[in-house]
Amino acid sequence: MSEFSVVGKSVTRLGVRELVTGEAKYSIDAKLPGMLHGKILRSPHPHARILSVDTSKAEKVPGVKAVVTSRDVSGVPQTVYSPQIPPLADGIVRYVGEPVAAVAAVDEYTATEALDLIKVEYEELPAVFDPEEAMKPGAPKIHNAENNIGIRCGLTRGDSEKGFAEADFIAEGRFITPPQNHVCMEPANCMASFDASGRLTIHSQQTSIFWARSDVARVMNMQENQVRVIQSPTAGGHFGSGNSTPRRHFIASFLAKKTLRPVKIVNTREEEFISVYPMMPVVLEMKIGVKKDGTLIAKQTKVIGDSGAYFSVIALSMLSVAMMRHESLYRFNNVKTEAFLVFTNRVPTCSMRGFGNQTGHFALESLMDQLAEGIDMDPAEIRLKNAIKTGDTSIHGWVIRSGGLTECIQKSVKSADWKRKRTAGKSEGTKKRGIGMGSAIHVAGMKIADQSWGCGALVKINDDGTANLLLGEGDCGQGARTVLAQICAEELGIPYEHVWASLADTDFAPYCAGPLSSRTTATAGNAVKLAASDARRQLVEAAAKKLGVPADSLEIKDQKIYARNNPGLSVSYAEAAMSPDYRPIMGRGTFIPPQPGMDLKTWYGDCATACSFTNQIAEVEVDTETGVVKLLKYTGAYDLGRAINPIAAEGQAEGGVSFAMGYAMTENLEPVKGHVVGTQFTDYKVPTMLDMPEIKPILVETDDPACPFGAKGLGEIVGVPTAPAIANAIYNAVGVRIKELPITPEKVLRALQEKAKS
Amino acid sequence: MSEFSVVGKSVTRLGVRELVTGEAKYSIDAKLPGMLHGKILRSPHPHARILSVDTSKAEKVPGVKAVVTSRDVSGVPQTVYSPQIPPLADGIVRYVGEPVAAVAAVDEYTATEALDLIKVEYEELPAVFDPEEAMKPGAPKIHNAENNIGIRCGLTRGDSEKGFAEADFIAEGRFITPPQNHVCMEPANCMASFDASGRLTIHSQQTSIFWARSDVARVMNMQENQVRVIQSPTAGGHFGSGNSTPRRHFIASFLAKKTLRPVKIVNTREEEFISVYPMMPVVLEMKIGVKKDGTLIAKQTKVIGDSGAYFSVIALSMLSVAMMRHESLYRFNNVKTEAFLVFTNRVPTCSMRGFGNQTGHFALESLMDQLAEGIDMDPAEIRLKNAIKTGDTSIHGWVIRSGGLTECIQKSVKSADWKRKRTAGKSEGTKKRGIGMGSAIHVAGMKIADQSWGCGALVKINDDGTANLLLGEGDCGQGARTVLAQICAEELGIPYEHVWASLADTDFAPYCAGPLSSRTTATAGNAVKLAASDARRQLVEAAAKKLGVPADSLEIKDQKIYARNNPGLSVSYAEAAMSPDYRPIMGRGTFIPPQPGMDLKTWYGDCATACSFTNQIAEVEVDTETGVVKLLKYTGAYDLGRAINPIAAEGQAEGGVSFAMGYAMTENLEPVKGHVVGTQFTDYKVPTMLDMPEIKPILVETDDPACPFGAKGLGEIVGVPTAPAIANAIYNAVGVRIKELPITPEKVLRALQEKAKS
Repeated sequence: MSEFSVVGKSVTRLGVRELVTGEAKYSIDAKLPGMLHGKILRSPHPHARILSVDTSKAEKVPGVKAVVTSRDVSGVPQTVYSPQIPPLADGIVRYVGEPVAAVAAVDEYTATEALDLIKVEYEELPAVFDPEEAMKPGAPKIHNAENNIGIRCGLTRGDSEKGFAEADFIAEGRFITPPQNHVCMEPANCMASFDASGRLTIHSQQTSIFWARSDVARVMNMQENQVRVIQSPTAGGHFGSGNSTPRRHFIASFLAKKTLRPVKIVNTREEEFISVYPMMPVVLEMKIGVKKDGTLIAKQTKVIGDSGAYFSVIALSMLSVAMMRHESLYRFNNVKTEAFLVFTNRVPTCSMRGFGNQTGHFALESLMDQLAEGIDMDPAEIRLKNAIKTGDTSIHGWVIRSGGLTECIQKSVKSADWKRKRTAGKSEGTKKRGIGMGSAIHVAGMKIADQSWGCGALVKINDDGTANLLLGEGDCGQGARTVLAQICAEELGIPYEHVWASLADTDFAPYCAGPLSSRTTATAGNAVKLAASDARRQLVEAAAKKLGVPADSLEIKDQKIYARNNPGLSVSYAEAAMSPDYRPIMGRGTFIPPQPGMDLKTWYGDCATACSFTNQIAEVEVDTETGVVKLLKYTGAYDLGRAINPIAAEGQAEGGVSFAMGYAMTENLEPVKGHVVGTQFTDYKVPTMLDMPEIKPILVETDDPACPFGAKGLGEIVGVPTAPAIANAIYNAVGVRIKELPITPEKVLRALQEKAKS
Repeated sequence: MSEFSVVGKSVTRLGVRELVTGEAKYSIDAKLPGMLHGKILRSPHPHARILSVDTSKAEKVPGVKAVVTSRDVSGVPQTVYSPQIPPLADGIVRYVGEPVAAVAAVDEYTATEALDLIKVEYEELPAVFDPEEAMKPGAPKIHNAENNIGIRCGLTRGDSEKGFAEADFIAEGRFITPPQNHVCMEPANCMASFDASGRLTIHSQQTSIFWARSDVARVMNMQENQVRVIQSPTAGGHFGSGNSTPRRHFIASFLAKKTLRPVKIVNTREEEFISVYPMMPVVLEMKIGVKKDGTLIAKQTKVIGDSGAYFSVIALSMLSVAMMRHESLYRFNNVKTEAFLVFTNRVPTCSMRGFGNQTGHFALESLMDQLAEGIDMDPAEIRLKNAIKTGDTSIHGWVIRSGGLTECIQKSVKSADWKRKRTAGKSEGTKKRGIGMGSAIHVAGMKIADQSWGCGALVKINDDGTANLLLGEGDCGQGARTVLAQICAEELGIPYEHVWASLADTDFAPYCAGPLSSRTTATAGNAVKLAASDARRQLVEAAAKKLGVPADSLEIKDQKIYARNNPGLSVSYAEAAMSPDYRPIMGRGTFIPPQPGMDLKTWYGDCATACSFTNQIAEVEVDTETGVVKLLKYTGAYDLGRAINPIAAEGQAEGGVSFAMGYAMTENLEPVKGHVVGTQFTDYKVPTMLDMPEIKPILVETDDPACPFGAKGLGEIVGVPTAPAIANAIYNAVGVRIKELPITPEKVLRALQEKAKS
């Protein structure tokens, strides 16, 4: 029997009835009286000087209420998180789709019509779309940065040269990972409105509501107490796109300020593909040396991240993740890494589920299979040999307080019948079967040294002993509110149904960072647990006063607080809540990660509240005639610390496979001369239900001591090693290794043809 | 120069631009998609048995979505605050206007049409409308209460009989005070809606939002975490009507539950007059003995409060206020009081500004003038002689921590040129001038022993050092949010403009009781001050850690925290707010009045956070030919402890004169055979701008030690002694004393005629 009452139960998700009845309200549904519709005029050129913008015709269109250009927003303060990006292009456009001007009109059609009447004269400039090209001398300059290198960084630990000298086998490769679009079913949108007092409210999908508030307040030159950001009750997809604040928020705010009416901007699907900041494309060269016994002895890595046309804090963070996070997966000793953040004339990048970590793992986990082959070891064995474990400190100073990688490998290997399938007969005509694995580490709650990563929660005890949980954590569809309500209920000792968890609204919610670095369960969960514990303490004290006994002589069961030695002596939660000496009872929780965090100079330091682990096994069938790869079965074991809500955890795992399958095999935003070609679902191919394999999720619970009820994060890691697992399975099936994502039939076929030639 | 930066300044009221531009959103403006309109069928009889209700025709009207009768709501749990009153009359109607059934339809017209088609068969029962008649044997019985007496209570302190024996002069009288309608410009309304998950939201004018939530949750048999009550951003009047939860909230909730659509109910003005629970009508017999030197030596009082057709907690509280609160105004030693709460076939009563205290003061302050005349003393002198003072404990155990009555009398006397005007020539043809005064005490934050009267506040520090103040205190138009934001800003040491104060919403706000017993500034203000102080402490600790110095070596100025000995060493509030070791900074304030409270058995005990005092001087002109009384000038001195916002305080005083003038001279809901006759503004005469006298408010600051920055309450006391001041001025002008309110020209003329006869 479980030690918990609510934790570990697959309780019904908050708001699920709205979802299934279609009554759920999305950001796109938000309306206000007098609302105008905004549309953005975007650059048709990847790089050009704006010579003139003539809005006179557009302004005369009946129904057009305002037009804004860079003249209206020039010189506004920079945002915190994307300091370099102005609301509208100021003098120069640097990517196709960059906002140049915007219109607010009484309806979308009028606004669109007016856009066509804005006349912009451009002087085209030479452009560059490949980061390695951009780094070459003489390449077109995008900013005042030498060789278009925005950031250059790196680290050296141990002596990798010496390591390579001692290695028995060395594998290396050059890996290329593409940008990925978030493909939210709900197109990005926002609504800005000023009240008569000049207070600004933003309704949108933004999940990091406090970051959005800071950014909007800065750009609009307002105080934060005068700005409100509300996340819609339901998320129509997120995947990281709601962390940094998109330009449309500022544009809508300026249009609203100019018209004194609410202004709503909704992307078309085409705009989604060309203007929503995608995951960073990365070129990764990696080399690893191994001893005969499987010990990893040296590693060198070069990472080139394509920042697109602008720098953002997120891009730098993603670069750092791509360059080093995977190195805490195994017991590395000698590593050397250099990384470059490079400007190109492409859309800037943004955070996305996995946050660059899938890039590093694609290289690492592909090479791990090459190394295993090189020393004739089972891929599972070489991973088990080097797996980081509970109590280890990784080469980057990460303290592994719970490390279930070994168990993940063992359980997934067993469940997938790995050993038999690796060697069993695998072909049927042109269709060859293969099996491959990938392991991964991901953080649950990242912390950078000298930055604040605290999170707050409040628990109000109602007069009947039920509770209202106040949170700023935007639920991005993963069910955060449900899981946090479970943690609250468990800690308070009340049924799950007795907790209401708030939506995200900066006016009311305690500060938090929002759903990034898989921090919600671990970090926000800790804050919730602290708040609930604080409220429970007050309830017990109120009961003690009422009963005239010491608080430590009391126990709790079924929302009754009773004397341990005399259970008849009791008060209900409702009675305690109404105590004249304690009401109102409000529990406060502030969780500040106690780790020192990662030092940005050395890239060293214990920086995660916890680390999650996974091992995943892909079974594929490759058609050697067409190159088509079919994913047959997917077994994933996930060390998530504790499954607060098992069915939700399994849902995350299943969604993660779908998400990562697209990344691995079909999705591609690669532009042609700076223009994204596939701007509809017919071209940008997202896996559908029909593409899905049989999925077998295995939840591994390692009870992390720093996490609430031991629960770490799961949302991102699910998709981190999926691409290498598939690539390794393809190699196992047909003996070709694809190092550039997505692994399309064309690439497989070409590789098979080349292999046949050699 | 003031010691304060924000307190004591007449800062601009929050939301004032909305008010003056007409953009303010009232409860009546709240709309939701699919909203239905509810209408209530009310009893045409003051007392009758319901034999049958036939809704079949009404249900068939196209556009009618639901009809509810007592069948739908029978046996639902009782409310906390009006336990006796069911949502719809169950079997028997007990007053004209009592809800019998209700309809929800697509528009108001359809709903009204359907009401006409509901056929109710009644068996009329004998009815009684006068509480003294109701107490007689053989009177019609309204409930199972002997002689229709709901509650009988009383108290004896000292020996009043002995006191009267020692008195040099005794004055006595029988005083009658009528019910008063709140006359909110916005008619009472509410909207109830269920979401797909079954959660219920109420939008209304209710200011005691948590009480409303408790009541609605009980009646609807729901958990409190499943019910949300939101007060509208702007109050279109309140005056106490939003404290207890009107039946329309439950009726709208049942209609919403039945239709699964939002249902809005808006009173007509006629419904306002017949069904909104008015202030309790009271009959008061009082006798006071005095020594020659002016010392009050004995007092006896009998109070009969007309509860109307039902009992409520509020009615009992008002009765207790009417019977005794005025006795803490002077140094009484021997008092005896008995009081009755009696049922009649009239609309039940509700809290209203002054809360019955004007009734007791009407009798007391009229008699004080009779006593002064009897011993040939100036009315000001007899009041000064007996005035309770700082440090006194009143006969009921009220501890006067700040008592500015003496100063109020002195200042108002001086300002009004009292002595000269009392004796100056006063007549001009048939128009006679007179001057009179009235004093009063009122609580600022009442506490009953063994009941919880705590209040919470939260202060969130934003990333730029501004603050969001979370409050559940409904602003009933008095400017509570503004004053509480000032207290927050003062305590935090930031400009007023840097604080945003929340609206009242049970989902997010800390618990509080709402605006009653003039508790907002004193009680909620204390909670706000505690919360701000807690936040400031955290800011200072964050700064100390950042600067590496002890927290107690730091001082604050202009949102900078600096070392006392080295002002160059400083951090800004914004920097402190972003501290990695403290963010998010959330200050929590829970104020629980430390007094023991009033014991309901003995009616004894220190029960107010503070007591406010006033002396008011009315100057009138009485036309002896018509009996018309014109109020010429009104001077009021108010001991409010501290004026947080002087212009708002003066506004309260001015509004109070208008409010009490109507009570004293024109407003009357007196029914004819149970039917209120004046149900339009043509009959129910509220003072207008043209009726207003010159008003001279004098703010007396006594700096109460138990209150935030010394500020007590002002909202209610302003109108408490207005009626006796006017009555005393009339007596001074023409020598007749009117003891029944309102003092209409008819009553004055009749008294003049009787005086001429005698």
